[in-house]
Amino acid sequence: MDRTRRNERMAALTKIVTASPNRIFTLSYFCNLFGAAKSTMSEDIDILQDVLARFELGRLDTVTGAAGGVRFRPGMGKTEARRIITGLCEELAHPSRLLPGGFLYLSDMLSTPSVVRSMGVILAEQFYEAAPDFVLTMETKGIPVALMTADALGVPLVIARHSSNVYEGSAVNINYVTGSADRIETMSLSRRAVHAGQRALIVDDFLKGGGTARGMIDLMGEFSVQVAGMAFVMATAEPAHRRIHGEKTLMVMDAKPDDPASLVVRPADWLIGETSDK
Amino acid sequence: MDRTRRNERMAALTKIVTASPNRIFTLSYFCNLFGAAKSTMSEDIDILQDVLARFELGRLDTVTGAAGGVRFRPGMGKTEARRIITGLCEELAHPSRLLPGGFLYLSDMLSTPSVVRSMGVILAEQFYEAAPDFVLTMETKGIPVALMTADALGVPLVIARHSSNVYEGSAVNINYVTGSADRIETMSLSRRAVHAGQRALIVDDFLKGGGTARGMIDLMGEFSVQVAGMAFVMATAEPAHRRIHGEKTLMVMDAKPDDPASLVVRPADWLIGETSDK
Repeated sequence: MDRTRRNERMAALTKIVTASPNRIFTLSYFCNLFGAAKSTMSEDIDILQDVLARFELGRLDTVTGAAGGVRFRPGMGKTEARRIITGLCEELAHPSRLLPGGFLYLSDMLSTPSVVRSMGVILAEQFYEAAPDFVLTMETKGIPVALMTADALGVPLVIARHSSNVYEGSAVNINYVTGSADRIETMSLSRRAVHAGQRALIVDDFLKGGGTARGMIDLMGEFSVQVAGMAFVMATAEPAHRRIHGEKTLMVMDAKPDDPASLVVRPADWLIGETSDK
Repeated sequence: MDRTRRNERMAALTKIVTASPNRIFTLSYFCNLFGAAKSTMSEDIDILQDVLARFELGRLDTVTGAAGGVRFRPGMGKTEARRIITGLCEELAHPSRLLPGGFLYLSDMLSTPSVVRSMGVILAEQFYEAAPDFVLTMETKGIPVALMTADALGVPLVIARHSSNVYEGSAVNINYVTGSADRIETMSLSRRAVHAGQRALIVDDFLKGGGTARGMIDLMGEFSVQVAGMAFVMATAEPAHRRIHGEKTLMVMDAKPDDPASLVVRPADWLIGETSDK
């Protein structure tokens, strides 16, 4: 391949690193691809680091050591995160979205790629330091946002099922109590899905009583996997006493029973507060 | 914001357009963002178009008219697509992956973000011209690849469920015959999920008898939605007579009953053939 000019290299370099979040690329990889010297590629990478920081488009980290190189971590500015989540709240606060039992119609939003991608980036940024080995979700509605969070973190997604399935091979089943109905349900995970000693980030769409989340924690216990964090798209303001603690949520909803006009949906405190990080 | 140099603009421009596939950005948007003249931004866009084509990193299309601008369409070269799918086939052809009933353990691959992203781009490229309004899948295992296909196409994902659910509001249910077991099952979709006159692209993980796919076609019929195409990650070589026709698949598997050593997994013909486009 012919030698590539800096303008062209900047474009190709940006596309390649941002399309593979958390993958470590060596300097040599780009030197070969572009037919450029190491010193030249280092300068390109410096420029890209500055631009990403300046436009709040994520971070390009330098990883040192034998397997070193550069690694892109998706991210956005706090202002942009607040703008996106506030916009979603306004759209969700329509009374027609309130469903029987105090639930909210979220399915359209939870399967719009651009929306779940933004949510995934905002959530992933909160858990880079927790260094999970995989993201765990319970089928079905949380899968898209969990996948995008896993993508931003550069780790696999693991999906717990309601029942074990011929497609999954042998599985571990546990029973759990759903928070809202006090019903006993079953949660199933393929034996080969995870390994003892790994760290899980739990991501799901909706947090009410916390029963399903509690079930996922117990399931991880069966596999000797540590829970490194929990994140949810939406939480109800009530009940205050949940079966879990220490979670991050993007939005909070509140509504009086059988009164759609009372519906309120707002960004979680940690997204709007200037000082609080809760 | 200060005036931005071309090297820096190229990096930011690339990140912004590639992160929002199929979204149309006006020239003015970038002129404002970078404080640059229209002629300058046009040159930047020309450079980016050339680089994406040269490195086979997707396409930047110019959209004319009042709502015109540029639109990024993810894509990859045929050589790269073949390399990725061939690599997946090699990994999948391990006899330990064969499950009772002639199924294959695919769950790990189907929920690895980088893998489903590549699959989604390869599938989306086949359906840009079909211009679907949304991607339809049946829960659960096909959701990640269907989401990534929808993301590359810039359209929402719609998920059919096994049963209607309190979170979804009122729903349309149909019964369908699963191809393998000749069992009757139910498929459910929220009334507000899709609209009459739209076009659907069906994406799912596994094609055997085609019963589930047939069910999705019938379900779309109930909503007066036209099926613009069907795509699958894996198809069995047998049965030759399916309940559906005209699908695109990425991989084909074959195995004699109860003989794991006979397992063969290969890329679909259209990915490896030089002339055929089937």
